[in-house]
Amino acid sequence: MNRGAPYTRLIADLPATVPFLAPEAIERRDGRPLVLRLGANESAFGPSPRACEAMGVAAARAAYYGDPESYELRAALASHHGVRMEQLVVGSGIDDLLGLIVRTFLDRGEVAVTSLGAYPTFNYHVAGYGGTLERVPYHENANDLEALAAAARRTHARLVYLANPDNPTGAWHTTEDLGAFIERLPEHCLLVLDEAYSDFAPPEALPPMVGEDDPRVIRLRTFSKAHGLAGARIGYAVATAETIATFEKIRLHFGVNLLAQAGALASLADTDYLRGVVVAVAEGRRAYEALARDLGLTPLPSATNFVAIDVGGSAQARALMEALAARAVFIRMPGVPPLDRCIRVTVGTPAERALFATILREVWPR
Amino acid sequence: MNRGAPYTRLIADLPATVPFLAPEAIERRDGRPLVLRLGANESAFGPSPRACEAMGVAAARAAYYGDPESYELRAALASHHGVRMEQLVVGSGIDDLLGLIVRTFLDRGEVAVTSLGAYPTFNYHVAGYGGTLERVPYHENANDLEALAAAARRTHARLVYLANPDNPTGAWHTTEDLGAFIERLPEHCLLVLDEAYSDFAPPEALPPMVGEDDPRVIRLRTFSKAHGLAGARIGYAVATAETIATFEKIRLHFGVNLLAQAGALASLADTDYLRGVVVAVAEGRRAYEALARDLGLTPLPSATNFVAIDVGGSAQARALMEALAARAVFIRMPGVPPLDRCIRVTVGTPAERALFATILREVWPR
Repeated sequence: MNRGAPYTRLIADLPATVPFLAPEAIERRDGRPLVLRLGANESAFGPSPRACEAMGVAAARAAYYGDPESYELRAALASHHGVRMEQLVVGSGIDDLLGLIVRTFLDRGEVAVTSLGAYPTFNYHVAGYGGTLERVPYHENANDLEALAAAARRTHARLVYLANPDNPTGAWHTTEDLGAFIERLPEHCLLVLDEAYSDFAPPEALPPMVGEDDPRVIRLRTFSKAHGLAGARIGYAVATAETIATFEKIRLHFGVNLLAQAGALASLADTDYLRGVVVAVAEGRRAYEALARDLGLTPLPSATNFVAIDVGGSAQARALMEALAARAVFIRMPGVPPLDRCIRVTVGTPAERALFATILREVWPR
Repeated sequence: MNRGAPYTRLIADLPATVPFLAPEAIERRDGRPLVLRLGANESAFGPSPRACEAMGVAAARAAYYGDPESYELRAALASHHGVRMEQLVVGSGIDDLLGLIVRTFLDRGEVAVTSLGAYPTFNYHVAGYGGTLERVPYHENANDLEALAAAARRTHARLVYLANPDNPTGAWHTTEDLGAFIERLPEHCLLVLDEAYSDFAPPEALPPMVGEDDPRVIRLRTFSKAHGLAGARIGYAVATAETIATFEKIRLHFGVNLLAQAGALASLADTDYLRGVVVAVAEGRRAYEALARDLGLTPLPSATNFVAIDVGGSAQARALMEALAARAVFIRMPGVPPLDRCIRVTVGTPAERALFATILREVWPR
């Protein structure tokens, strides 16, 4: 009997892994709703009311495919960043764009470099497209730029992934550091600069967009964090026009949701709302920092919408995660040294933070 | 100077093509809005009001990532089809799932078979993943199942693509024909059965779902057509649990929009609305058929939400397309023989159909 087609060798040999266990899966496993959902760096402050309204209006037009060129959104983004539309591609979030980048640049067996403990979805795509991953440990709670560049040179890497500001630490590098880092990368190596948290970052962490004709860098931005549109799945890449034109050869042209395009466009225009979110998040970070210090713990400086808190050791962090999970609190912790001394908590609303503080004080052994 | 990473050989060698020119791109090119948008087989009757409401409610929760398992929707679909949840995966429309299938089953250089003039996005993915495409001409306005199976055997194909009901003809094969077709496929060949138009099809065109443990077939369904949710980007595949588990190794886990999941779930429950759409579409097909006959043209029998009309020859079809485009009417026509004698018109609302009839009567040379 015909047993159907065999999987490709590459796919057959892949392990069965998923990048993240979702909060919904935890709820189903435990048979109860979560009390706090502060593990995925979603925005506790929600989308802009204008974005919600735009999505509501767009819902009535949901029978029509969204514009595959995301023309209006790209025009607005080009104006916002001072780049040309040809330098922009819109995707279903940075996850989607990471897959597109890996597929475009990394041939089977070629090397991508990342930090050990950095964003797992990049690693997932590298494995899924048959690349080889080289991981460089964090150094003192930050990406080790020197070691990343050295690893890229040693392995003749095609891609280096760097989140700036960083997840899961919240740390950031300056424009100057990034410039020096790019200069140390080997020939034929591309920096995949994940700027998901850029809206929360200080200006000195964000290189100006004037360098976008630099073929050595692809920058990734998203509406999932400060804009509060994670569920809408929309982000974008800024690169050279040639690179973007190459993505056009293989990307899913009709893949971006019509409602998401409308919501992102409205959110981009609602600068007052975004500014308010950034202020509220900064306040939330300060509250977490004070809470941590009050418990004798060390908050890591963060330019994001979360705070990593050093609780003194891996065993302590794991025990604390278990205690919080037992109270139906969803947060995450880095899985590998040296960061596994930390827990990572997304900034919640004032009410969520107060509840988190209460529970943390109850479960943290003094 | 570092010139950035080179593209993979596969991607560098791909031609720059897009599967479809979008209606928005036509509007931008021509500098005016379209008068009729009847070219993409979108639902003129829109989404269910319940789906719109569900998406509006979900918009307020858009700051949260959608459930990567689409658990509630899959549970509802499993119940609807009488299959296990493990046999279902949800994606951002059939286009997304076609890419996933090609990536999973078609190694570089391996062959996929399709009809010459069938859905171009399948071909786009085959090229994009380095597969080889074997195309079999249509025979008398229908997929030539005998020739498709023979081509699959001759080329040792891994995949055969078949839309049933078919696009762009509207034709359909019976369950019996499909069963015989599957038996004629070679060892290690999978039928990719695109059932985007299944909601419009007569029961005899839809094999029961009991055979889903058959590893020789993957069935694809979408909310883009009868459910009127094309812009929400949501569809699903039904296959063996083993195949679905394999997709889990590489698919974009957080790729499906939260609003789309909510809209699809509500739409699936609104069976009265769906039934109404199917009735309205059947009425629209009859109107197009009468119109075509009245002009001395031949409508092809259709089990979809569009009608292909044979206008007598390729030159006539092209001239008619130009005349309609000049009147800002967006429809499509098959690009290759023998179907390029036809134009393809999506069923519109009664008002849209009346306007189309008026314009067609004005531009069609008697």
